Amino acid sequence: MSVLASAVLSGDRLALARALTQVENDTAEGRLALNALFQNTGRAHLIGVTGAPGTGKSSLVNQIALHLRRPPEGEPKKVAIVAVDPSSPFTGGAVLGDRVRMRDLSGDPGVFIRSMASRGSLGGLAQATAGVVQVFDAAGYDVILIETVGAGQSEVDIARLAHTTLVVEAPGLGDDIQAIKAGILEIADILVINKADRPGVESTERALKSMLELAHPVKKVFKHHGQIMSTIAPEQASDPAMWVPPIQRTVATAGTGMRELIQFIEQHAEHLRQSGEWSRRERARLQAELDVLITETLVSQFRASISKTEFQNVYDALASRAISPWEAVNTLMNKRQA
Amino acid sequence: MSVLASAVLSGDRLALARALTQVENDTAEGRLALNALFQNTGRAHLIGVTGAPGTGKSSLVNQIALHLRRPPEGEPKKVAIVAVDPSSPFTGGAVLGDRVRMRDLSGDPGVFIRSMASRGSLGGLAQATAGVVQVFDAAGYDVILIETVGAGQSEVDIARLAHTTLVVEAPGLGDDIQAIKAGILEIADILVINKADRPGVESTERALKSMLELAHPVKKVFKHHGQIMSTIAPEQASDPAMWVPPIQRTVATAGTGMRELIQFIEQHAEHLRQSGEWSRRERARLQAELDVLITETLVSQFRASISKTEFQNVYDALASRAISPWEAVNTLMNKRQA
Repeated sequence: MSVLASAVLSGDRLALARALTQVENDTAEGRLALNALFQNTGRAHLIGVTGAPGTGKSSLVNQIALHLRRPPEGEPKKVAIVAVDPSSPFTGGAVLGDRVRMRDLSGDPGVFIRSMASRGSLGGLAQATAGVVQVFDAAGYDVILIETVGAGQSEVDIARLAHTTLVVEAPGLGDDIQAIKAGILEIADILVINKADRPGVESTERALKSMLELAHPVKKVFKHHGQIMSTIAPEQASDPAMWVPPIQRTVATAGTGMRELIQFIEQHAEHLRQSGEWSRRERARLQAELDVLITETLVSQFRASISKTEFQNVYDALASRAISPWEAVNTLMNKRQA
Repeated sequence: MSVLASAVLSGDRLALARALTQVENDTAEGRLALNALFQNTGRAHLIGVTGAPGTGKSSLVNQIALHLRRPPEGEPKKVAIVAVDPSSPFTGGAVLGDRVRMRDLSGDPGVFIRSMASRGSLGGLAQATAGVVQVFDAAGYDVILIETVGAGQSEVDIARLAHTTLVVEAPGLGDDIQAIKAGILEIADILVINKADRPGVESTERALKSMLELAHPVKKVFKHHGQIMSTIAPEQASDPAMWVPPIQRTVATAGTGMRELIQFIEQHAEHLRQSGEWSRRERARLQAELDVLITETLVSQFRASISKTEFQNVYDALASRAISPWEAVNTLMNKRQA
């Protein structure tokens, strides 16, 4: 085993930081460490948190971490936060977000926060995120919160890394017919309406509820304890494979609704384990990760097999519209085989 | 030339619809048509419109189309609208959006609207969008409006298709430190504050202005005609390569600010042509498209070279953590070469 990997497994925080950097930058040392650490992964609960800007995701993630650090009963959990910002290939957002976090969580040795910006390509970012999550998993972090900004395909891809996905909405963003996306709901295991002290919370909840009914037509949505809960109809309650995303209101800045949210998160983990869905998701996640690595490897092998001049000639012919994009692909593929 | 391509070039609207479908589904007929049509592309002005949900992008795109159809002087332009929704791998958003559009634009033979949902992978969506845009370009559409939902990497990738990119903001979304993304500003050629009759428009504009100053530190931002305009300092005015994104307030539903916005769009096209940036962007766009096609081709060739059983064995070893993801990649690469 690599020296770095051993140090990570022994709980060395500096080694962990170094391993994360090496893995994020996809260096030879990073790959060696990942190979060695991989057999120690598979224990952490990976929680994805996604939603549009303005929903207060960062505050919510902070609050979840704080609650997991100070549970009403049982041992505090070790928590890693991976903040991924696919829309920021430059700098800015991630750093600002970190400052807010630092106020609440700094100095707690049971919390480790890592911000990740774009790696140039979306595949690269998903790959780097998967690697970083594996390092935290092997290092013994019980819960890994993966926060992504926005509501695009990139977030859907990164959410696929998680066992449990929280989709965060907020009142007042939902006045556009495109505000609540059917697609993003499909990946939600738990729906959170944050900033629930704001006007419009009822209409946001109604909109989510009707979207849920569209997405889960066979299931019932009913009121429970004065709060709309989407859940399974009584006759289906015995089916462990059935999970209808609950809707939880929170005010993260005030800590409101957080205990209930933590309960839903724990119930979902339990549901995954009992239904066999946990290992199914693990497998799907590893397959997706492997697919990304294969793609990156094929592309870099291909690039290395063709000279820069040959590429340039094809780009020139394409720009002058002498050949079409598909004809350009064929030309390059033939050059490789020659 | 394929029969379909000839019919598209002759202005046959049914043939156009068929070609779009074939290209979107990446059929053999679609590829043939694209190969034939490609030499007729390169004339349209491609305008990307992106921004978070809730900013009123669809209404804004409609209004731009309406203004281009009824210009104060000159000939009306033929306008295509390509509405891309990367966050919706299922159904919903795009269809709803279409209904809103239909009210304003239906029955106008100089307008063609096409909605595109996810193709399973982001690369697939970017590829399909590039193809659809080429069909419209060859078919003689003067302006192609490419509307994307959200503010993620996917939108950035699709915006790279455009000559001119509009980033749309709205007051009241900007109370989160992540609401205005540095990354998305980097791709903006024109910033639009839509819903500018709402409270908070001044603070949105201030926030955009300071983000712009960060992004373009050498350039000046000054007030012009009572409206904050970021533009070049007088001593740099002679540099045709210099373009600082202007900020334009609009109320799309009322048509307010639309004439000024159209002027900025036309000024930007003129700037691109004079500075040589037009052909530079064309080239970058075609290169990016070619890279996507190469990736898709390499992956499908690789998939075809390895049996399903072999893949399955590797997935199994990975899921049981007997081998790491990188070891799995090496195993599969060796199987291919054998």
